[in-house]
Amino acid sequence: MRTPEEYKESLREMRPNVYKFGNLIEDVTAHPATRRMIEGHARIFQAAFEEEHSDTVTTMSTLTDETISRYLSLITGPGDMIANSRLKRLMFNLTGTCTGGRCVGWNALNAMWAVTYEIDAKYETNYHASIRRWLGNSQARDIAIAGALTDPKGNRKLGPSEQADPDAYLRIVDRTESDIIVRGAKVMIAGVTASNELFVVPGSAYKEEDADYAVSFVIPRDAEGITIIEARHPSDMREMEEGPDNPVKGGGITQGYVLFDDVKVPRDRVFMAGEWEFTGTAILSFIGPYRSAIGGCVAGQGDLMMGASTLMARANGLDEKAIRDKLTSMAMNNETTFGLGIAAGVLGRQHPSGVWQPDKLMANVNKVYVATLPYETKRLAQEVAGGIGETGCMPSWTDLQDPEYGPLLRKYLTAEVPGEERYVLARLIEWLTVGGGIPGTMHGGGSPDGAKMLISRMVDLEHDIDLVKDLLEMREEPEEEEGEETEE
Amino acid sequence: MRTPEEYKESLREMRPNVYKFGNLIEDVTAHPATRRMIEGHARIFQAAFEEEHSDTVTTMSTLTDETISRYLSLITGPGDMIANSRLKRLMFNLTGTCTGGRCVGWNALNAMWAVTYEIDAKYETNYHASIRRWLGNSQARDIAIAGALTDPKGNRKLGPSEQADPDAYLRIVDRTESDIIVRGAKVMIAGVTASNELFVVPGSAYKEEDADYAVSFVIPRDAEGITIIEARHPSDMREMEEGPDNPVKGGGITQGYVLFDDVKVPRDRVFMAGEWEFTGTAILSFIGPYRSAIGGCVAGQGDLMMGASTLMARANGLDEKAIRDKLTSMAMNNETTFGLGIAAGVLGRQHPSGVWQPDKLMANVNKVYVATLPYETKRLAQEVAGGIGETGCMPSWTDLQDPEYGPLLRKYLTAEVPGEERYVLARLIEWLTVGGGIPGTMHGGGSPDGAKMLISRMVDLEHDIDLVKDLLEMREEPEEEEGEETEE
Amino acid sequence: MRTPEEYKESLREMRPNVYKFGNLIEDVTAHPATRRMIEGHARIFQAAFEEEHSDTVTTMSTLTDETISRYLSLITGPGDMIANSRLKRLMFNLTGTCTGGRCVGWNALNAMWAVTYEIDAKYETNYHASIRRWLGNSQARDIAIAGALTDPKGNRKLGPSEQADPDAYLRIVDRTESDIIVRGAKVMIAGVTASNELFVVPGSAYKEEDADYAVSFVIPRDAEGITIIEARHPSDMREMEEGPDNPVKGGGITQGYVLFDDVKVPRDRVFMAGEWEFTGTAILSFIGPYRSAIGGCVAGQGDLMMGASTLMARANGLDEKAIRDKLTSMAMNNETTFGLGIAAGVLGRQHPSGVWQPDKLMANVNKVYVATLPYETKRLAQEVAGGIGETGCMPSWTDLQDPEYGPLLRKYLTAEVPGEERYVLARLIEWLTVGGGIPGTMHGGGSPDGAKMLISRMVDLEHDIDLVKDLLEMREEPEEEEGEETEE
Amino acid sequence: MRTPEEYKESLREMRPNVYKFGNLIEDVTAHPATRRMIEGHARIFQAAFEEEHSDTVTTMSTLTDETISRYLSLITGPGDMIANSRLKRLMFNLTGTCTGGRCVGWNALNAMWAVTYEIDAKYETNYHASIRRWLGNSQARDIAIAGALTDPKGNRKLGPSEQADPDAYLRIVDRTESDIIVRGAKVMIAGVTASNELFVVPGSAYKEEDADYAVSFVIPRDAEGITIIEARHPSDMREMEEGPDNPVKGGGITQGYVLFDDVKVPRDRVFMAGEWEFTGTAILSFIGPYRSAIGGCVAGQGDLMMGASTLMARANGLDEKAIRDKLTSMAMNNETTFGLGIAAGVLGRQHPSGVWQPDKLMANVNKVYVATLPYETKRLAQEVAGGIGETGCMPSWTDLQDPEYGPLLRKYLTAEVPGEERYVLARLIEWLTVGGGIPGTMHGGGSPDGAKMLISRMVDLEHDIDLVKDLLEMREEPEEEEGEETEE
Repeated sequence: MRTPEEYKESLREMRPNVYKFGNLIEDVTAHPATRRMIEGHARIFQAAFEEEHSDTVTTMSTLTDETISRYLSLITGPGDMIANSRLKRLMFNLTGTCTGGRCVGWNALNAMWAVTYEIDAKYETNYHASIRRWLGNSQARDIAIAGALTDPKGNRKLGPSEQADPDAYLRIVDRTESDIIVRGAKVMIAGVTASNELFVVPGSAYKEEDADYAVSFVIPRDAEGITIIEARHPSDMREMEEGPDNPVKGGGITQGYVLFDDVKVPRDRVFMAGEWEFTGTAILSFIGPYRSAIGGCVAGQGDLMMGASTLMARANGLDEKAIRDKLTSMAMNNETTFGLGIAAGVLGRQHPSGVWQPDKLMANVNKVYVATLPYETKRLAQEVAGGIGETGCMPSWTDLQDPEYGPLLRKYLTAEVPGEERYVLARLIEWLTVGGGIPGTMHGGGSPDGAKMLISRMVDLEHDIDLVKDLLEMREEPEEEEGEETEE
Repeated sequence: MRTPEEYKESLREMRPNVYKFGNLIEDVTAHPATRRMIEGHARIFQAAFEEEHSDTVTTMSTLTDETISRYLSLITGPGDMIANSRLKRLMFNLTGTCTGGRCVGWNALNAMWAVTYEIDAKYETNYHASIRRWLGNSQARDIAIAGALTDPKGNRKLGPSEQADPDAYLRIVDRTESDIIVRGAKVMIAGVTASNELFVVPGSAYKEEDADYAVSFVIPRDAEGITIIEARHPSDMREMEEGPDNPVKGGGITQGYVLFDDVKVPRDRVFMAGEWEFTGTAILSFIGPYRSAIGGCVAGQGDLMMGASTLMARANGLDEKAIRDKLTSMAMNNETTFGLGIAAGVLGRQHPSGVWQPDKLMANVNKVYVATLPYETKRLAQEVAGGIGETGCMPSWTDLQDPEYGPLLRKYLTAEVPGEERYVLARLIEWLTVGGGIPGTMHGGGSPDGAKMLISRMVDLEHDIDLVKDLLEMREEPEEEEGEETEE
Repeated sequence: MRTPEEYKESLREMRPNVYKFGNLIEDVTAHPATRRMIEGHARIFQAAFEEEHSDTVTTMSTLTDETISRYLSLITGPGDMIANSRLKRLMFNLTGTCTGGRCVGWNALNAMWAVTYEIDAKYETNYHASIRRWLGNSQARDIAIAGALTDPKGNRKLGPSEQADPDAYLRIVDRTESDIIVRGAKVMIAGVTASNELFVVPGSAYKEEDADYAVSFVIPRDAEGITIIEARHPSDMREMEEGPDNPVKGGGITQGYVLFDDVKVPRDRVFMAGEWEFTGTAILSFIGPYRSAIGGCVAGQGDLMMGASTLMARANGLDEKAIRDKLTSMAMNNETTFGLGIAAGVLGRQHPSGVWQPDKLMANVNKVYVATLPYETKRLAQEVAGGIGETGCMPSWTDLQDPEYGPLLRKYLTAEVPGEERYVLARLIEWLTVGGGIPGTMHGGGSPDGAKMLISRMVDLEHDIDLVKDLLEMREEPEEEEGEETEE
Repeated sequence: MRTPEEYKESLREMRPNVYKFGNLIEDVTAHPATRRMIEGHARIFQAAFEEEHSDTVTTMSTLTDETISRYLSLITGPGDMIANSRLKRLMFNLTGTCTGGRCVGWNALNAMWAVTYEIDAKYETNYHASIRRWLGNSQARDIAIAGALTDPKGNRKLGPSEQADPDAYLRIVDRTESDIIVRGAKVMIAGVTASNELFVVPGSAYKEEDADYAVSFVIPRDAEGITIIEARHPSDMREMEEGPDNPVKGGGITQGYVLFDDVKVPRDRVFMAGEWEFTGTAILSFIGPYRSAIGGCVAGQGDLMMGASTLMARANGLDEKAIRDKLTSMAMNNETTFGLGIAAGVLGRQHPSGVWQPDKLMANVNKVYVATLPYETKRLAQEVAGGIGETGCMPSWTDLQDPEYGPLLRKYLTAEVPGEERYVLARLIEWLTVGGGIPGTMHGGGSPDGAKMLISRMVDLEHDIDLVKDLLEMREEPEEEEGEETEE
């Protein structure tokens, strides 16, 4: 297990290929645009050495019997899924925001573990041996692996091969004996700058004509041809400032646009290359654990809003009774997504390749809540926090230090606690609800509409209809002509 | 395992002590006011012999290694809780309504299994041996056991011993060497008429002065001094009619008022008699599994509404696309309560007595949903069903058979299917949403406000506050003076 | 203005043509299945003589300057719409349920006032003079007029003329110099039995091939060829009992299936006969005021639930603080539908014929709330009322009077008030939420999905888009090629 | 009526007393931190000269019969309230955000118009003549008047005179023949920098011991002793950048902390000075029209989200059917707050001083929706917009112009429209939902909890109870002992 410092050192050793605001970032661990995010990911490495967290953050490798980061493990049973939910909740708790540079990669490798097994079974390829070799090696190196699914997508009505621009989805443009060459982009990739390697999976289910888009592989984040441009996020310029206007030092979420300019990927790092009929399985295999455990992440977000709201209310001198209902609602929201994630994780089934696949219906139900309840929790946090929390409606920290009027500002911000303390709490509420700390909960891992479509497909409506017919003793009618219920 | 017929025969052999509308019901298995409810409970016995259901309905006794009804089993691990949720869903599916004459008793015996263990540990009493003996015997006899918690309660502001009427809560009025004598009532007891025995548990947490109210025991439903009056429920007079205006033959829920007129309970059937400080534990031990698995029950209710709504829409000739969103919402509601119940069940812990106790925070979160989501599901069912489903707005079956205008009514009720079929489907929607089939989902097993109070107590708010302080590096302030966070 | 007694006498003088349970009801003012509903409608007549209510219930005729029932008036301005909302709220308040035998007819005549004006303008017909003559006469006679829109509809995918059964929608089957002959049915007609006449309007917008279905007229409720069969509703058999199990004596809602067996309608009572292109206008003209003022009706329902819940809570000895949030939510629901109805009424425009037409967008928004918020209010009422209110879970009044166990039942129902009082309050909650008092709020006046479709059509999305383009100074793009915004 | 340029010139002529980030802003019309906000307010002046807007933006003075800005008018009837709602909706539409520097002042002067009338009646003071003189003069000068209510408030459990710091609420520290001297602050004052004068009103209802805090007056924004520090808001540093990362040029909301350092206010500009018993009336008089018309403001916000979402969906090539439900929900949210505001405005009553006072119950119901529905509308806008809209997850405009990788970014952002167009639309969604354009909808004008408390007080619960007693014919019981219902 690497130390946080070793992890950061490994990032410094990589080729600088990350940009923001038109500038190359020479050292991502030091630059204000990325260093908080790196600190957040470093916190994971540190937690492995902390007694209270190590059980959550580490596990035993099923490949080597060594202790490894849970983010590099195979998920092989309900217990692993419960730990997955707990881990995501913990990391949000400890960093105040998303550490997305690891969990997507983790889910991606587990999905492709199953998919490579299936492809090999059909085509006698060697993908599964490749991923096994790569994974064992990665566990030993204790590397950070980001996951990349989302393509630019161009016109949403059209498939990859129908687009005006054939690069709108990442694709194989050439193949050699030893490599495949890929071109395109993966966009909005959480925490990619914090990663050592990047695990690429198709972003959707494709058809035969899209075979060149059916590609999965893993590659060093700084490989030749890869360029990363960090996206903006709310109030990101405050990260360039000192002081508590960006209140959390050890956390920050960034998402990158990853450009693949004819990147060469060695064959032993390729896990799918043209087998289009497995793209649907890849997506569903990813969605299962991802949409389950994301409930823990969102609960971790809510935990902090509950803590921050309560501190703010106390700082304002408010009676705690006045906020109890709201805290109860927030708690309910937290436990709803956490709990449904647990349920999805537990109700799954073992894939022949050994990985555990959560219940997809439940996972997608959870996704819909994950895309809605956090908005409600944020609203409640703002309601409890009052006007200065709602939009961070306070002068800057610089103003508070102004020799002329600074003392008056501090005086007028004072309540049960000194003005500076209320200030920092209100900035945290802002950061969590409309500022730099908000993760992309709604669309990250797919849209709620997509989840609803899957729910609609996965629900066994004909079973419910049969139940009703039995109850009414009308089992023969009125649908038999459709041939749906020829036997029980 | 008894057959349905043996079960019904056992009820017929009992002393008639059930009344409705001022009349004694001589044979509860035949009288229209109770026979459908008995049929519903008999369905459980039948399911034990059905291959597709036996795994859900039966299990192996941890006392005897015999196959027994799951309703008589000890819940000893997460798997049992998952089966509990599935069982409740199944039974609602098969009967169209609540079979409450068994699940409350089951939860009560599991709660008291733990509580008797604790009382014995403190007072060297023999309650645990008694319950073990009784349970083994009951498993062998395969009896149906109703559970009874709810007292009349009088003035809700006052405790049992403060009431104007000391009988407002069930209490011990006398004790002999061999017996205790109890007086009072348990009210709104689901399915009591379908039971062979009645398991009584205190309905709330009591104080020292209420010691006589701290009483738990099990007793034959027809014991001397017990009188049961069946409560009304919506459209209950239709149960006296023939024909499909009460559309489900094999299911029906009734709830009884059970009067205890100085009833003698033998000591070896008593599991608490004065140990008031364990009443809180008894309630919480009951609430845990009950408020978890009730989510399965409510999901089972929703399954039927989905099936019935879809059939109704098809009968109306509606395009299924038009109702897809509503069905998805209904499915989400179903899986929410089912899933949170699973999560609560899985996240629990083992009690020293051997029974598994679900996570109480999650169980209470589930209770709040159980008290709200079914209303939404019913609304959606009515929305899909159209006006005739909303309030059952159709002439009676008798009118449909009228020689004069009956043919016209049937003609005008006809759509994609003959008028009679639409009629029966609409009656089912009515029955499920505002008719004889609606269970008391909101207050059964305690009110949502009570659940919210428990959530508020169980949430570890100070932990959330600590997380925030760590994030802001303000760990010392502002609450240290309260002595709550002296160490980490 | 007629007295209640004169009104009832007029009903007794009509030809008996109402049936329930296979029997002809000889005197609808006396038969238990209809008399409470008649009493409710008689309450309107009485209110005209009560000082506190007369302003709401009566107005001055714009035809004659006489004081008339508001239910027979033309709605000619915002003030009339406000009074409409208040009137509906008042009548629900005074009767505990819907008095639907008047408001639908009122809205229908106002809609057809405008439509006849338009038809005459196009075709030089004399419909408008006919309706004016009929209305003046009806005002003078102070009659009760039910409205009838809903057709049986058969297969919902098909239009009237495409149905297997051509009678699935009411239609003209023959025409003579002096009459038209109609066949078919109008179903689920609220309060029809309480009416003297029946105002028929097409139930939907039709196409040219459906011209025979484009028919509107008014006819005595007991005209030759008309047969009415009362529909069932929840717990309707209790209306046959004495005592408070049906707790409201002066109110009750019934809905009838009205069969038209080749009924002859004189030409001067016909307001549309084939002018299919005006059916859409007729429907929209009806929907405007109806979906506005229905918000008052639903608010009146909520008022009673607030009152009943509070009394129940007091009877239980509950602290009023414990229910304050719930009462506030109920009040919000009430004022939402009441207020949006007021807004729709006020924001309308004057039709050339003189009637005022509320804002249709707002009216349809209100309809969606009317179809959802009452469910929430009912849930809250049940939550406040506790278990005995939720499903009326108490023995019958007969049981409470039983010489043997009745005294015990009353004893155990006693709390802050005697058991009988709690009993009646709980029965009222049951009646209002799952019993005989529930009106068909969701589908009455059209489905919420229909309302949403209209909202979607009526919103000026292109205006919103223009605003955005102006803000972004991108007015020319990106949609100009669609030719939608060639000028502002 | 002044032109936009005259208005801006008047601001430039004022003493610079506005600070941000520690620096004095010399010219608020030019500085990037304030100029967009000034442009937004200038848009109001421009609209007065535009035919399509002048009816909404101007009206006839009831004092002088001259055409004046509606923001300087007395609200004297329902029509004025309807226009108020429309005006707020329009200004949000035209500027993309709040122009709060005028509407609060407008509401404040109308509130104090009534209050001064009442104070004078009681104390024979001359406040009303003063406000009348000042208002006539202000109308003639066509000045912009901000309103200031919110005090720093210190410990929320304590009243003004109980605070550790007596300046926690603005107060009179001295009085002379000709002036009063005030000290303290008003905080989070919307648009104060855009104003010529500042109208101060007490922020809450005070008690006798707080008499010095009962103070209302109007004063030039740049008076001696006044210092304003602009608060931060989300992504405010982007306002310092060029380019579309802050996408709206002609709008921006800022809120200032206004410090009163012993400011001298001439007696003829004082409208309350010690009459503590009128502070409650002042607040309620302000709340009425404010919480009504704010519904229009929030609807205007939603209009833009609908337009922006639809453009974004089109830009993505999405089928419009896929977003119809969401747009309908957004439209419902918009019309709900707009409509309830109209209803509150229309249902009010005339105050003896001539101003119209909207219905307070309805206004407070609206406030609760105003504090909740916009969150839902924002969520829907983000849902429709997709991942790049949710958090503005795209590289900066600078990056898009990068000679190296800029072309690739633009290529990968391209869909139905070029990448730059999607970029700007997504930035607008970000700006409206989590960026610089979000107004403080929840706490602005008071918290939703405060509104709920008022609803609870204003609802006539005893009337509802009487209705129930009448229905049940139990009018005498059970509450007569409380003396509440001795007569009707």
